[in-house]
Amino acid sequence: MFIVGERINGMFSKVKKAIETQDKAPVQELAQAQLDAGADALDVNVGPTSDDPKSVMVWLVETIRETTDAPLSIDSPKFEVLKAGLDACSGRKVINSTTAKESDLKRILPLAMEQGCPVIALCIDENGVPSDAQGRAEVALKIVAAAMEHGIPTENLYIDPVILPVRADQKQPAFAIEAINQFTLLSDPAPHIIVGLSNLSQGTKERKLLNRTFLAMAVGEGLDAAIADPLDRDLMETMITAEVLMNKTIYSDGYLKAYYQK
Amino acid sequence: MFIVGERINGMFSKVKKAIETQDKAPVQELAQAQLDAGADALDVNVGPTSDDPKSVMVWLVETIRETTDAPLSIDSPKFEVLKAGLDACSGRKVINSTTAKESDLKRILPLAMEQGCPVIALCIDENGVPSDAQGRAEVALKIVAAAMEHGIPTENLYIDPVILPVRADQKQPAFAIEAINQFTLLSDPAPHIIVGLSNLSQGTKERKLLNRTFLAMAVGEGLDAAIADPLDRDLMETMITAEVLMNKTIYSDGYLKAYYQK
Repeated sequence: MFIVGERINGMFSKVKKAIETQDKAPVQELAQAQLDAGADALDVNVGPTSDDPKSVMVWLVETIRETTDAPLSIDSPKFEVLKAGLDACSGRKVINSTTAKESDLKRILPLAMEQGCPVIALCIDENGVPSDAQGRAEVALKIVAAAMEHGIPTENLYIDPVILPVRADQKQPAFAIEAINQFTLLSDPAPHIIVGLSNLSQGTKERKLLNRTFLAMAVGEGLDAAIADPLDRDLMETMITAEVLMNKTIYSDGYLKAYYQK
Repeated sequence: MFIVGERINGMFSKVKKAIETQDKAPVQELAQAQLDAGADALDVNVGPTSDDPKSVMVWLVETIRETTDAPLSIDSPKFEVLKAGLDACSGRKVINSTTAKESDLKRILPLAMEQGCPVIALCIDENGVPSDAQGRAEVALKIVAAAMEHGIPTENLYIDPVILPVRADQKQPAFAIEAINQFTLLSDPAPHIIVGLSNLSQGTKERKLLNRTFLAMAVGEGLDAAIADPLDRDLMETMITAEVLMNKTIYSDGYLKAYYQK
């Protein structure tokens, strides 16, 4: 499973403060801590409040690159911020994200080709997030077709069904689970399937329990990537165990320890 | 979800000793503890070693019935022990279990009709446990057809795909998960689907983690019953959370507390 650590995000106070004071150490420490905890890549998001998001993104990317060559997931809803982050990022990277809106697809899919890197595509089109599983599968099919047209290989496409908070609409998590099942049938080979996990539990009291339970269910349906908090040890152990139960990683009595030694 | 507490079983030393000394208190305490922890029914199994399993089963049933009228799952591979336990059990009860072998179906399905109680049916036929999901679905279909022939209403039928230890054959848990998905399509309405959960983790070091992760995945596929340990609080919280995420029980900020107050 491809775990993208979510913690380098300006919405978190520690990162916000580091950005404001141009203090590299907390960012670099957070990068290393997530990698040590099993992250395969690091999300980089300037957060909601920056005045100059392009410069902040470039500073974050360069700061992280001083200490690790792990893949960076350049995360912004703004094209110029994405572009600046990608150009500043040597080595492996991921675009996070495009939607299925025509205006996004026609700018961001060529960018993915230009950068030669994977792209995360959200099941959001001109009408917003589809209200059920079938709607998500239709949007996902549109994304797969657009990616093919642009020459993006399936292994570089990560489709996100978009997890809405259980607290806002309790029908949505099950629709997302069902959508994941349907995505595995979209093409052969199927695209990767990713979720931004933490949104599920926004505003709830049992955030970690909801996140890890959903993750187990989603892995059972074919999820193979997640943007999540690798510092949540229970979450990581659930993910590792779900992959063992799906026969995706080899069981041994010390399978948890083996994961962290990979 | 229908949780059958697994702890009153002569294979556990505490129960074994209580049986040997005809000491009612430990059995009655274990019954109450499981009900307090959220069990909907209590499995009753004399264990592997008893010389006179019929008498032991009757003693266990009568002992538990002195203090609770909760449904009892009368659990034995021996017909005469099942029959003795059922006859001794006033009130609600479940037969645990029949296999799909002709010789079992033709004795135990009429017993379920005679007792007017639900029956758990294991996906085991004359060839043993099927090696994959499709094989389990075929055996399950045979069970559904036999239950119909005997006039057993679908709501009284619990089909168990049979969980084999992940340590023995790592492909089996995913086959069981897939089988659960297929069982939901067997009839309309579908039969209940149950698992004997603990077998999954036999001989492993991470028993509880494996059990609860599998349970979440199985609930995502449509599992609606389990024979499990309700005293494993993490397991119960995972189950409760999985049902919230599948929109089967109502979300509230205090959904865990609400479950235990039901």
